[in-house]
Amino acid sequence: MQIARTVEEFRALRASVPALGVVPTMGFLHEGHLSLVRRAKAECGAAAATIFVNPTQFAANEDFSTYPRSLERDLELLRAEGCDFVFAPDRVEAMYPPGFDIRIAVGGVTTMLEGAVRPGHFDGVATVVAKLLNITQPTRAYFGQKDAQQCVVVRKLVRDLNMPTEIVVCPTVREADGLAMSSRNAYLAPAERQAATILIRALRAAEALFQAGEREADALRQAMRAVLAGEPMAVVEYVSAAHPESLAELERIGAAGALLSLAARIGKTRLIDNLVLPPAG
Amino acid sequence: MQIARTVEEFRALRASVPALGVVPTMGFLHEGHLSLVRRAKAECGAAAATIFVNPTQFAANEDFSTYPRSLERDLELLRAEGCDFVFAPDRVEAMYPPGFDIRIAVGGVTTMLEGAVRPGHFDGVATVVAKLLNITQPTRAYFGQKDAQQCVVVRKLVRDLNMPTEIVVCPTVREADGLAMSSRNAYLAPAERQAATILIRALRAAEALFQAGEREADALRQAMRAVLAGEPMAVVEYVSAAHPESLAELERIGAAGALLSLAARIGKTRLIDNLVLPPAG
Repeated sequence: MQIARTVEEFRALRASVPALGVVPTMGFLHEGHLSLVRRAKAECGAAAATIFVNPTQFAANEDFSTYPRSLERDLELLRAEGCDFVFAPDRVEAMYPPGFDIRIAVGGVTTMLEGAVRPGHFDGVATVVAKLLNITQPTRAYFGQKDAQQCVVVRKLVRDLNMPTEIVVCPTVREADGLAMSSRNAYLAPAERQAATILIRALRAAEALFQAGEREADALRQAMRAVLAGEPMAVVEYVSAAHPESLAELERIGAAGALLSLAARIGKTRLIDNLVLPPAG
Repeated sequence: MQIARTVEEFRALRASVPALGVVPTMGFLHEGHLSLVRRAKAECGAAAATIFVNPTQFAANEDFSTYPRSLERDLELLRAEGCDFVFAPDRVEAMYPPGFDIRIAVGGVTTMLEGAVRPGHFDGVATVVAKLLNITQPTRAYFGQKDAQQCVVVRKLVRDLNMPTEIVVCPTVREADGLAMSSRNAYLAPAERQAATILIRALRAAEALFQAGEREADALRQAMRAVLAGEPMAVVEYVSAAHPESLAELERIGAAGALLSLAARIGKTRLIDNLVLPPAG
Protein backbone atom coordinates (compact mmCIF):
# COMPACT_ATOMS: atom_id res chain seq x y z
CA MET A 1 0.00 0.00 0.00
CA GLN A 2 1.39 3.37 -1.04
CA ILE A 3 0.67 6.50 0.94
CA ALA A 4 0.60 9.97 -0.62
CA ARG A 5 0.87 13.01 1.66
CA THR A 6 0.55 15.63 -1.11
CA VAL A 7 -1.65 16.11 -4.17
CA GLU A 8 1.33 15.65 -6.49
CA GLU A 9 2.30 12.35 -4.85
CA PHE A 10 -1.23 11.02 -5.27
CA ARG A 11 -1.40 12.05 -8.92
CA ALA A 12 1.70 9.97 -9.63
CA LEU A 13 0.11 6.92 -7.95
CA ARG A 14 -3.15 7.45 -9.83
CA ALA A 15 -1.36 7.39 -13.18
CA SER A 16 -0.15 3.84 -12.50
CA VAL A 17 -3.59 2.16 -12.67
CA PRO A 18 -6.23 2.28 -15.44
CA ALA A 19 -9.25 2.22 -13.10
CA LEU A 20 -9.63 3.18 -9.46
CA GLY A 21 -12.33 2.97 -6.81
CA VAL A 22 -12.03 5.69 -4.19
CA VAL A 23 -13.45 5.85 -0.65
CA PRO A 24 -13.35 9.41 0.79
CA THR A 25 -13.21 9.34 4.60
CA MET A 26 -12.40 11.50 7.60
CA GLY A 27 -10.44 8.61 9.11
CA PHE A 28 -11.03 6.78 12.44
CA LEU A 29 -12.16 3.94 10.24
CA HIS A 30 -14.74 1.32 11.14
CA GLU A 31 -16.33 -1.65 9.39
CA GLY A 32 -18.59 0.71 7.40
CA HIS A 33 -15.59 2.33 5.71
CA LEU A 34 -13.87 -1.02 5.22
CA SER A 35 -16.94 -2.47 3.48
CA LEU A 36 -16.64 0.38 0.96
CA VAL A 37 -12.93 -0.32 0.39
CA ARG A 38 -13.66 -4.00 -0.24
CA ARG A 39 -16.33 -3.14 -2.78
CA ALA A 40 -14.07 -0.55 -4.49
CA LYS A 41 -11.29 -3.12 -4.78
CA ALA A 42 -13.62 -5.83 -6.10
CA GLU A 43 -15.31 -3.60 -8.68
CA CYS A 44 -12.40 -1.44 -9.92
CA GLY A 45 -9.33 -3.68 -9.49
CA ALA A 46 -7.54 -0.96 -7.51
CA ALA A 47 -8.82 0.88 -4.43
CA ALA A 48 -7.81 4.07 -2.68
CA ALA A 49 -9.00 5.74 0.51
CA THR A 50 -8.64 9.39 1.37
CA ILE A 51 -8.23 10.42 5.01
CA PHE A 52 -8.83 14.11 5.70
CA VAL A 53 -10.77 15.72 8.54
CA ASN A 54 -12.18 18.61 6.51
CA PRO A 55 -12.43 21.78 8.60
CA THR A 56 -14.79 23.57 6.19
CA GLN A 57 -17.67 21.18 6.88
CA PHE A 58 -17.61 21.85 10.63
CA ALA A 59 -19.31 24.93 12.07
CA ALA A 60 -17.45 26.97 14.70
CA ASN A 61 -19.40 25.31 17.53
CA GLU A 62 -18.86 21.76 16.26
CA ASP A 63 -16.34 19.02 17.03
CA PHE A 64 -13.57 19.65 14.45
CA SER A 65 -10.78 19.89 17.04
CA THR A 66 -11.94 16.85 19.02
CA TYR A 67 -12.99 14.68 16.04
CA PRO A 68 -11.28 11.31 16.66
CA ARG A 69 -8.10 10.67 14.68
CA SER A 70 -6.03 7.46 14.46
CA LEU A 71 -3.90 7.55 11.29
CA GLU A 72 -1.58 4.63 12.15
CA ARG A 73 -4.47 2.33 13.03
CA ASP A 74 -6.39 3.45 9.92
CA LEU A 75 -3.43 2.61 7.68
CA GLU A 76 -3.13 -0.85 9.26
CA LEU A 77 -6.82 -1.54 8.66
CA LEU A 78 -6.57 -0.39 5.03
CA ARG A 79 -3.46 -2.45 4.42
CA ALA A 80 -5.24 -5.53 5.73
CA GLU A 81 -8.04 -4.94 3.19
CA GLY A 82 -5.61 -4.83 0.25
CA CYS A 83 -6.18 -1.11 -0.29
CA ASP A 84 -3.68 0.07 -2.93
CA PHE A 85 -3.31 3.81 -2.25
CA VAL A 86 -4.07 6.25 0.54
CA PHE A 87 -4.28 10.01 0.16
CA ALA A 88 -3.72 11.50 3.63
CA PRO A 89 -2.76 15.18 3.27
CA ASP A 90 0.01 15.97 5.74
CA ARG A 91 -1.55 19.32 6.68
CA VAL A 92 -4.73 21.32 6.12
CA GLU A 93 -2.83 23.70 3.80
CA ALA A 94 -2.23 20.84 1.35
CA MET A 95 -5.96 21.09 0.61
CA TYR A 96 -6.54 24.77 1.41
CA PRO A 97 -3.46 26.79 0.47
CA PRO A 98 -3.27 30.50 1.35
CA GLY A 99 -5.66 32.47 -0.86
CA PHE A 100 -8.11 29.58 -1.25
CA ASP A 101 -11.62 31.02 -1.38
CA ILE A 102 -13.76 28.94 -3.73
CA ARG A 103 -17.14 27.59 -2.63
CA ILE A 104 -19.58 25.19 -4.29
CA ALA A 105 -23.23 25.57 -3.29
CA VAL A 106 -25.44 22.64 -4.28
CA GLY A 107 -28.77 24.42 -3.81
CA GLY A 108 -32.13 23.24 -2.50
CA VAL A 109 -31.20 19.79 -1.18
CA THR A 110 -28.68 21.38 1.22
CA THR A 111 -31.19 23.58 3.04
CA MET A 112 -33.19 20.99 5.01
CA LEU A 113 -32.46 18.22 7.58
CA GLU A 114 -28.71 18.26 8.32
CA GLY A 115 -28.34 21.45 6.26
CA ALA A 116 -30.90 23.28 8.40
CA VAL A 117 -29.18 22.29 11.65
CA ARG A 118 -25.63 22.69 10.27
CA PRO A 119 -25.56 25.81 8.05
CA GLY A 120 -22.71 25.77 5.54
CA HIS A 121 -21.99 22.09 6.22
CA PHE A 122 -22.88 20.86 2.73
CA ASP A 123 -21.05 23.70 0.95
CA GLY A 124 -17.98 22.42 2.79
CA VAL A 125 -18.78 18.81 1.88
CA ALA A 126 -19.45 19.59 -1.81
CA THR A 127 -16.26 21.65 -2.14
CA VAL A 128 -13.98 19.08 -0.51
CA VAL A 129 -15.59 16.17 -2.39
CA ALA A 130 -15.12 18.02 -5.71
CA LYS A 131 -11.46 18.56 -4.82
CA LEU A 132 -10.95 14.94 -3.70
CA LEU A 133 -12.58 13.59 -6.87
CA ASN A 134 -10.44 15.88 -9.03
CA ILE A 135 -7.29 14.80 -7.17
CA THR A 136 -8.03 11.07 -7.15
CA GLN A 137 -9.95 10.85 -10.46
CA PRO A 138 -11.85 7.70 -9.54
CA THR A 139 -13.74 5.52 -11.95
CA ARG A 140 -16.18 5.08 -9.07
CA ALA A 141 -16.40 6.70 -5.65
CA TYR A 142 -18.07 4.92 -2.72
CA PHE A 143 -20.18 6.49 0.01
CA GLY A 144 -22.20 5.00 2.87
CA GLN A 145 -26.00 5.30 3.03
CA LYS A 146 -25.57 6.24 6.72
CA ASP A 147 -24.96 9.84 5.55
CA ALA A 148 -28.05 9.83 3.34
CA GLN A 149 -28.25 13.56 2.64
CA GLN A 150 -24.52 13.68 1.87
CA CYS A 151 -25.13 10.95 -0.72
CA VAL A 152 -27.91 13.04 -2.31
CA VAL A 153 -25.66 16.14 -2.34
CA VAL A 154 -22.68 14.28 -3.82
CA ARG A 155 -24.80 12.66 -6.52
CA LYS A 156 -26.19 16.08 -7.42
CA LEU A 157 -22.71 17.64 -7.40
CA VAL A 158 -21.40 15.01 -9.79
CA ARG A 159 -24.45 15.12 -12.07
CA ASP A 160 -24.80 18.93 -12.23
CA LEU A 161 -21.06 19.50 -12.79
CA ASN A 162 -20.76 16.55 -15.24
CA MET A 163 -17.92 15.04 -13.20
CA PRO A 164 -16.65 11.84 -14.85
CA THR A 165 -17.06 9.61 -11.79
CA GLU A 166 -19.82 7.14 -10.92
CA ILE A 167 -21.11 7.53 -7.36
CA VAL A 168 -21.92 4.26 -5.60
CA VAL A 169 -23.95 4.32 -2.38
CA CYS A 170 -23.50 1.27 -0.14
CA PRO A 171 -25.69 -0.04 2.71
CA THR A 172 -25.22 1.23 6.26
CA VAL A 173 -23.16 -1.19 8.35
CA ARG A 174 -24.58 -1.72 11.87
CA GLU A 175 -23.48 -3.08 15.23
CA ALA A 176 -25.17 -6.30 16.41
CA ASP A 177 -27.82 -4.25 18.26
CA GLY A 178 -28.58 -2.14 15.19
CA LEU A 179 -26.63 1.05 16.00
CA ALA A 180 -25.28 2.50 12.75
CA MET A 181 -21.47 2.48 12.73
CA SER A 182 -20.04 5.98 13.05
CA SER A 183 -16.69 7.40 14.08
CA ARG A 184 -18.63 9.58 16.52
CA ASN A 185 -19.87 6.48 18.42
CA ALA A 186 -16.43 6.63 20.09
CA TYR A 187 -17.69 9.63 22.06
CA LEU A 188 -20.43 7.61 23.79
CA ALA A 189 -20.09 6.62 27.46
CA PRO A 190 -21.40 3.08 28.20
CA ALA A 191 -24.88 4.24 29.27
CA GLU A 192 -25.07 6.54 26.24
CA ARG A 193 -23.98 3.71 23.94
CA GLN A 194 -26.94 1.69 25.29
CA ALA A 195 -29.34 4.60 24.81
CA ALA A 196 -28.08 5.26 21.26
CA THR A 197 -29.95 2.23 19.91
CA ILE A 198 -33.10 4.33 20.24
CA LEU A 199 -32.37 5.82 16.78
CA ILE A 200 -32.62 2.56 14.84
CA ARG A 201 -35.49 1.39 17.03
CA ALA A 202 -37.44 4.53 16.13
CA LEU A 203 -36.73 4.04 12.43
CA ARG A 204 -37.72 0.37 12.54
CA ALA A 205 -40.98 1.21 14.30
CA ALA A 206 -41.89 3.55 11.44
CA GLU A 207 -40.75 0.98 8.88
CA ALA A 208 -42.95 -1.67 10.51
CA LEU A 209 -45.94 0.67 10.33
CA PHE A 210 -45.22 1.23 6.64
CA GLN A 211 -44.95 -2.51 6.04
CA ALA A 212 -48.33 -2.92 7.77
CA GLY A 213 -49.83 -0.56 5.18
CA GLU A 214 -49.54 2.93 6.69
CA ARG A 215 -48.97 5.51 3.94
CA GLU A 216 -49.43 8.79 5.84
CA ALA A 217 -45.99 10.32 6.37
CA ASP A 218 -47.16 12.13 9.51
CA ALA A 219 -48.05 8.82 11.12
CA LEU A 220 -44.53 7.57 10.42
CA ARG A 221 -42.94 10.73 11.82
CA GLN A 222 -45.13 10.50 14.92
CA ALA A 223 -44.17 6.86 15.40
CA MET A 224 -40.48 7.80 15.35
CA ARG A 225 -41.07 10.65 17.82
CA ALA A 226 -43.05 8.36 20.12
CA VAL A 227 -40.23 5.79 20.29
CA LEU A 228 -37.57 8.49 20.78
CA ALA A 229 -39.62 10.01 23.62
CA GLY A 230 -39.18 6.73 25.51
CA GLU A 231 -35.42 7.38 25.88
CA PRO A 232 -34.78 10.19 28.40
CA MET A 233 -31.12 10.59 27.27
CA ALA A 234 -32.13 11.36 23.66
CA VAL A 235 -32.72 15.00 22.60
CA VAL A 236 -34.37 14.93 19.16
CA GLU A 237 -33.21 17.42 16.49
CA TYR A 238 -35.47 16.27 13.68
CA VAL A 239 -37.45 13.30 12.36
CA SER A 240 -38.24 13.19 8.66
CA ALA A 241 -40.13 11.17 6.06
CA ALA A 242 -38.94 12.79 2.85
CA HIS A 243 -38.74 12.32 -0.90
CA PRO A 244 -35.48 10.39 -1.46
CA GLU A 245 -34.21 12.80 -4.17
CA SER A 246 -35.61 16.24 -3.36
CA LEU A 247 -35.62 15.60 0.42
CA ALA A 248 -38.93 17.50 0.64
CA GLU A 249 -41.15 16.26 3.47
CA LEU A 250 -43.89 13.97 2.15
CA GLU A 251 -47.58 13.91 2.95
CA ARG A 252 -48.04 10.34 1.71
CA ILE A 253 -45.54 7.62 0.80
CA GLY A 254 -46.03 6.93 -2.90
CA ALA A 255 -44.24 5.81 -6.04
CA ALA A 256 -40.89 7.37 -5.05
CA GLY A 257 -40.71 5.59 -1.71
CA ALA A 258 -39.24 7.63 1.13
CA LEU A 259 -36.16 8.39 3.16
CA LEU A 260 -36.89 8.05 6.87
CA SER A 261 -34.21 9.94 8.78
CA LEU A 262 -33.55 11.43 12.17
CA ALA A 263 -30.95 13.20 14.27
CA ALA A 264 -30.66 13.20 18.05
CA ARG A 265 -28.18 14.11 20.73
CA ILE A 266 -27.26 11.48 23.28
CA GLY A 267 -25.42 13.47 25.94
CA LYS A 268 -23.01 15.68 24.00
CA THR A 269 -22.87 13.33 20.99
CA ARG A 270 -24.90 14.09 17.88
CA LEU A 271 -26.01 10.98 15.99
CA ILE A 272 -27.91 10.48 12.73
CA ASP A 273 -29.45 7.44 11.07
CA ASN A 274 -31.90 6.57 8.29
CA LEU A 275 -33.79 3.83 6.50
CA VAL A 276 -35.06 3.83 2.91
CA LEU A 277 -38.68 2.81 2.26
CA PRO A 278 -39.39 1.25 -1.16
CA PRO A 279 -41.98 2.65 -3.59
CA ALA A 280 -45.56 2.14 -2.43
CA GLY A 281 -48.62 1.63 -4.62
CA MET B 1 -14.31 17.02 -37.81
CA GLN B 2 -16.87 15.34 -35.59
CA ILE B 3 -19.67 17.30 -33.94
CA ALA B 4 -21.27 16.27 -30.65
CA ARG B 5 -24.65 17.75 -29.73
CA THR B 6 -24.92 16.01 -26.33
CA VAL B 7 -22.60 15.35 -23.40
CA GLU B 8 -22.71 11.62 -24.08
CA GLU B 9 -21.72 12.07 -27.73
CA PHE B 10 -18.74 14.20 -26.73
CA ARG B 11 -17.57 11.71 -24.10
CA ALA B 12 -17.40 9.03 -26.81
CA LEU B 13 -15.27 11.30 -29.04
CA ARG B 14 -13.00 12.21 -26.11
CA ALA B 15 -12.25 8.55 -25.40
CA SER B 16 -10.74 8.17 -28.89
CA VAL B 17 -7.68 10.41 -28.30
CA PRO B 18 -5.02 10.26 -25.57
CA ALA B 19 -4.57 14.05 -25.24
CA LEU B 20 -6.83 16.93 -26.16
CA GLY B 21 -6.58 20.71 -26.27
CA VAL B 22 -9.93 22.42 -25.73
CA VAL B 23 -11.04 25.95 -26.64
CA PRO B 24 -14.27 26.96 -24.84
CA THR B 25 -16.18 29.61 -26.84
CA MET B 26 -19.60 31.22 -27.14
CA GLY B 27 -19.34 30.94 -30.93
CA PHE B 28 -19.41 33.72 -33.57
CA LEU B 29 -15.75 32.87 -33.99
CA HIS B 30 -13.02 35.28 -35.03
CA GLU B 31 -9.27 35.08 -35.53
CA GLY B 32 -8.73 35.26 -31.75
CA HIS B 33 -10.60 31.98 -31.24
CA LEU B 34 -8.93 30.39 -34.25
CA SER B 35 -5.45 31.24 -32.93
CA LEU B 36 -6.36 29.26 -29.79
CA VAL B 37 -7.53 26.28 -31.85
CA ARG B 38 -4.28 26.28 -33.84
CA ARG B 39 -2.23 26.30 -30.66
CA ALA B 40 -4.36 23.56 -29.08
CA LYS B 41 -3.89 21.38 -32.15
CA ALA B 42 -0.14 22.01 -32.31
CA GLU B 43 0.47 21.36 -28.61
CA CYS B 44 -1.95 18.48 -27.88
CA GLY B 45 -2.22 16.63 -31.22
CA ALA B 46 -6.01 16.83 -31.12
CA ALA B 47 -8.14 19.96 -30.68
CA ALA B 48 -11.75 20.54 -29.72
CA ALA B 49 -13.86 23.69 -29.50
CA THR B 50 -17.01 24.11 -27.46
CA ILE B 51 -19.73 26.45 -28.72
CA PHE B 52 -22.32 27.41 -26.12
CA VAL B 53 -23.84 30.81 -25.38
CA ASN B 54 -24.11 30.37 -21.63
CA PRO B 55 -27.22 32.08 -20.23
CA THR B 56 -26.04 32.01 -16.60
CA GLN B 57 -23.21 34.48 -17.24
CA PHE B 58 -25.57 37.14 -18.61
CA ALA B 59 -27.54 39.41 -16.26
CA ALA B 60 -31.23 40.01 -17.00
CA ASN B 61 -30.46 43.39 -18.61
CA GLU B 62 -27.64 42.05 -20.80
CA ASP B 63 -27.43 40.81 -24.39
CA PHE B 64 -28.04 37.05 -24.06
CA SER B 65 -30.94 36.98 -26.54
CA THR B 66 -29.18 39.18 -29.11
CA TYR B 67 -25.66 37.74 -28.68
CA PRO B 68 -24.51 36.97 -32.25
CA ARG B 69 -24.76 33.32 -33.34
CA SER B 70 -23.50 31.68 -36.55
CA LEU B 71 -23.10 27.93 -36.00
CA GLU B 72 -22.72 26.89 -39.66
CA ARG B 73 -20.04 29.51 -40.33
CA ASP B 74 -18.28 28.63 -37.03
CA LEU B 75 -18.14 24.96 -38.01
CA GLU B 76 -16.66 25.84 -41.42
CA LEU B 77 -13.95 27.95 -39.79
CA LEU B 78 -13.10 25.20 -37.31
CA ARG B 79 -13.02 22.56 -40.05
CA ALA B 80 -10.56 24.70 -42.00
CA GLU B 81 -8.24 24.82 -38.95
CA GLY B 82 -8.17 21.04 -38.64
CA CYS B 83 -10.19 21.08 -35.41
CA ASP B 84 -11.00 17.47 -34.52
CA PHE B 85 -14.13 17.73 -32.35
CA VAL B 86 -16.80 20.29 -31.58
CA PHE B 87 -19.13 20.22 -28.59
CA ALA B 88 -22.15 22.33 -29.49
CA PRO B 89 -25.05 21.45 -27.16
CA ASP B 90 -28.26 21.33 -29.17
CA ARG B 91 -30.25 23.13 -26.45
CA VAL B 92 -29.70 24.95 -23.16
CA GLU B 93 -31.21 21.99 -21.25
CA ALA B 94 -28.33 19.78 -22.41
CA MET B 95 -26.17 21.84 -20.02
CA TYR B 96 -28.82 22.86 -17.48
CA PRO B 97 -31.38 20.08 -17.10
CA PRO B 98 -34.49 20.61 -14.95
CA GLY B 99 -33.53 20.71 -11.27
CA PHE B 100 -30.04 22.10 -11.94
CA ASP B 101 -29.13 24.46 -9.09
CA ILE B 102 -25.42 24.25 -8.39
CA ARG B 103 -23.25 27.36 -8.22
CA ILE B 104 -19.50 27.84 -7.94
CA ALA B 105 -18.34 31.08 -6.35
CA VAL B 106 -14.66 31.88 -6.88
CA GLY B 107 -14.39 34.55 -4.18
CA GLY B 108 -12.47 37.81 -4.01
CA VAL B 109 -11.21 38.06 -7.59
CA THR B 110 -14.80 38.06 -8.87
CA THR B 111 -15.92 41.13 -6.93
CA MET B 112 -14.05 43.91 -8.78
CA LEU B 113 -13.75 45.20 -12.37
CA GLU B 114 -16.13 43.14 -14.57
CA GLY B 115 -17.52 41.46 -11.46
CA ALA B 116 -18.51 44.78 -9.90
CA VAL B 117 -20.31 45.92 -13.07
CA ARG B 118 -21.77 42.47 -13.88
CA PRO B 119 -22.89 40.86 -10.57
CA GLY B 120 -23.11 37.06 -10.79
CA HIS B 121 -21.25 37.02 -14.13
CA PHE B 122 -18.23 35.11 -12.86
CA ASP B 123 -20.29 32.60 -10.85
CA GLY B 124 -21.89 31.79 -14.21
CA VAL B 125 -18.51 31.63 -15.94
CA ALA B 126 -16.90 29.45 -13.24
CA THR B 127 -19.83 27.03 -13.18
CA VAL B 128 -20.03 26.58 -16.95
CA VAL B 129 -16.23 26.30 -17.33
CA ALA B 130 -16.13 23.62 -14.61
CA LYS B 131 -18.87 21.73 -16.46
CA LEU B 132 -17.17 22.12 -19.86
CA LEU B 133 -13.80 20.97 -18.47
CA ASN B 134 -15.46 17.95 -16.83
CA ILE B 135 -17.26 17.10 -20.07
CA THR B 136 -14.29 17.58 -22.40
CA GLN B 137 -11.50 16.51 -20.00
CA PRO B 138 -8.76 18.46 -21.76
CA THR B 139 -5.07 18.02 -21.22
CA ARG B 140 -4.92 21.78 -21.74
CA ALA B 141 -7.61 24.41 -22.15
CA TYR B 142 -6.95 27.65 -24.03
CA PHE B 143 -8.30 31.11 -23.19
CA GLY B 144 -7.62 34.55 -24.67
CA GLN B 145 -5.92 37.30 -22.65
CA LYS B 146 -8.60 39.67 -23.98
CA ASP B 147 -10.84 38.44 -21.13
CA ALA B 148 -8.14 39.00 -18.52
CA GLN B 149 -10.28 38.67 -15.41
CA GLN B 150 -11.93 35.54 -16.79
CA CYS B 151 -8.45 34.06 -17.18
CA VAL B 152 -7.67 34.87 -13.52
CA VAL B 153 -10.98 33.34 -12.40
CA VAL B 154 -10.52 30.18 -14.48
CA ARG B 155 -6.94 29.68 -13.27
CA LYS B 156 -8.14 30.05 -9.69
CA LEU B 157 -11.06 27.68 -10.30
CA VAL B 158 -8.74 25.01 -11.66
CA ARG B 159 -6.11 25.50 -8.96
CA ASP B 160 -8.49 25.69 -5.98
CA LEU B 161 -10.58 22.69 -7.13
CA ASN B 162 -7.48 20.69 -8.22
CA MET B 163 -8.92 20.15 -11.70
CA PRO B 164 -6.54 18.03 -13.81
CA THR B 165 -6.27 20.50 -16.72
CA GLU B 166 -3.54 23.01 -17.55
CA ILE B 167 -4.90 26.47 -18.36
CA VAL B 168 -3.06 28.26 -21.19
CA VAL B 169 -3.64 31.97 -21.72
CA CYS B 170 -2.85 33.25 -25.23
CA PRO B 171 -2.22 36.80 -26.49
CA THR B 172 -5.09 39.03 -27.53
CA VAL B 173 -5.52 39.09 -31.32
CA ARG B 174 -6.16 42.59 -32.70
CA GLU B 175 -7.44 44.23 -35.86
CA ALA B 176 -4.91 46.22 -37.91
CA ASP B 177 -5.84 49.40 -36.05
CA GLY B 178 -5.40 47.76 -32.64
CA LEU B 179 -9.03 47.02 -31.72
CA ALA B 180 -9.15 43.76 -29.77
CA MET B 181 -11.11 41.13 -31.65
CA SER B 182 -14.46 40.37 -30.00
CA SER B 183 -17.70 38.82 -31.14
CA ARG B 184 -19.41 41.94 -29.80
CA ASN B 185 -17.55 44.14 -32.34
CA ALA B 186 -20.26 42.96 -34.74
CA TYR B 187 -22.69 45.27 -32.91
CA LEU B 188 -20.70 48.41 -33.86
CA ALA B 189 -22.01 50.81 -36.53
CA PRO B 190 -19.23 52.21 -38.78
CA ALA B 191 -18.72 55.41 -36.76
CA GLU B 192 -18.73 53.39 -33.53
CA ARG B 193 -16.20 50.95 -34.98
CA GLN B 194 -13.91 53.93 -35.63
CA ALA B 195 -14.44 55.29 -32.10
CA ALA B 196 -13.79 51.86 -30.53
CA THR B 197 -10.04 52.17 -31.14
CA ILE B 198 -10.01 54.60 -28.21
CA LEU B 199 -9.73 51.61 -25.81
CA ILE B 200 -6.37 50.36 -27.09
CA ARG B 201 -5.13 53.92 -27.58
CA ALA B 202 -5.85 54.66 -23.91
CA LEU B 203 -4.06 51.48 -22.82
CA ARG B 204 -1.04 52.22 -25.02
CA ALA B 205 -0.78 55.75 -23.65
CA ALA B 206 -0.51 54.34 -20.13
CA GLU B 207 1.93 51.67 -21.30
CA ALA B 208 4.12 54.34 -22.90
CA LEU B 209 4.15 56.31 -19.65
CA PHE B 210 5.18 53.16 -17.79
CA GLN B 211 7.94 52.48 -20.33
CA ALA B 212 9.14 56.05 -19.79
CA GLY B 213 9.58 55.28 -16.09
CA GLU B 214 6.26 56.18 -14.48
CA ARG B 215 5.50 53.84 -11.55
CA GLU B 216 2.55 55.57 -9.88
CA ALA B 217 -0.59 53.60 -10.73
CA ASP B 218 -2.78 56.69 -10.39
CA ALA B 219 -0.80 58.43 -13.11
CA LEU B 220 -1.45 55.47 -15.43
CA ARG B 221 -5.15 55.40 -14.61
CA GLN B 222 -5.37 59.17 -15.20
CA ALA B 223 -3.58 58.81 -18.53
CA MET B 224 -6.15 56.22 -19.66
CA ARG B 225 -9.04 58.43 -18.52
CA ALA B 226 -7.56 61.45 -20.32
CA VAL B 227 -7.33 59.60 -23.62
CA LEU B 228 -10.83 58.13 -23.25
CA ALA B 229 -12.22 61.62 -22.51
CA GLY B 230 -11.12 62.63 -26.01
CA GLU B 231 -13.71 60.32 -27.61
CA PRO B 232 -17.24 61.69 -27.13
CA MET B 233 -18.86 58.36 -28.13
CA ALA B 234 -17.10 56.48 -25.29
CA VAL B 235 -18.78 56.15 -21.88
CA VAL B 236 -16.19 54.83 -19.44
CA GLU B 237 -17.20 52.13 -16.93
CA TYR B 238 -13.83 51.66 -15.26
CA VAL B 239 -10.09 52.03 -15.76
CA SER B 240 -7.77 49.92 -13.64
CA ALA B 241 -4.09 49.32 -12.90
CA ALA B 242 -4.25 46.20 -10.75
CA HIS B 243 -2.20 43.34 -9.36
CA PRO B 244 -2.29 40.66 -12.09
CA GLU B 245 -3.30 37.86 -9.66
CA SER B 246 -5.36 39.46 -6.88
CA LEU B 247 -6.75 42.20 -9.18
CA ALA B 248 -6.46 44.65 -6.27
CA GLU B 249 -5.82 48.23 -7.46
CA LEU B 250 -2.14 49.14 -7.11
CA GLU B 251 -0.55 52.27 -5.70
CA ARG B 252 2.78 51.64 -7.44
CA ILE B 253 3.81 49.23 -10.19
CA GLY B 254 6.35 46.87 -8.64
CA ALA B 255 7.72 43.36 -8.78
CA ALA B 256 4.41 41.79 -9.81
CA GLY B 257 3.90 44.04 -12.83
CA ALA B 258 0.32 45.10 -13.47
CA LEU B 259 -2.81 44.45 -15.43
CA LEU B 260 -4.02 47.63 -17.14
CA SER B 261 -7.67 47.17 -18.03
CA LEU B 262 -10.73 49.18 -18.94
CA ALA B 263 -14.36 48.90 -19.98
CA ALA B 264 -16.37 51.43 -21.97
CA ARG B 265 -19.63 51.65 -23.85
CA ILE B 266 -19.55 52.81 -27.45
CA GLY B 267 -23.19 53.49 -28.23
CA LYS B 268 -25.04 50.43 -26.89
CA THR B 269 -22.01 48.15 -27.17
CA ARG B 270 -19.96 47.32 -24.11
CA LEU B 271 -16.26 46.69 -24.88
CA ILE B 272 -13.30 45.66 -22.70
CA ASP B 273 -9.56 45.51 -23.32
CA ASN B 274 -6.31 45.20 -21.38
CA LEU B 275 -2.52 45.16 -21.53
CA VAL B 276 -0.11 43.45 -19.14
CA LEU B 277 2.82 45.46 -17.76
CA PRO B 278 5.96 43.47 -16.87
CA PRO B 279 7.54 43.52 -13.39
CA ALA B 280 9.19 46.83 -12.55
CA GLY B 281 12.22 47.36 -10.31
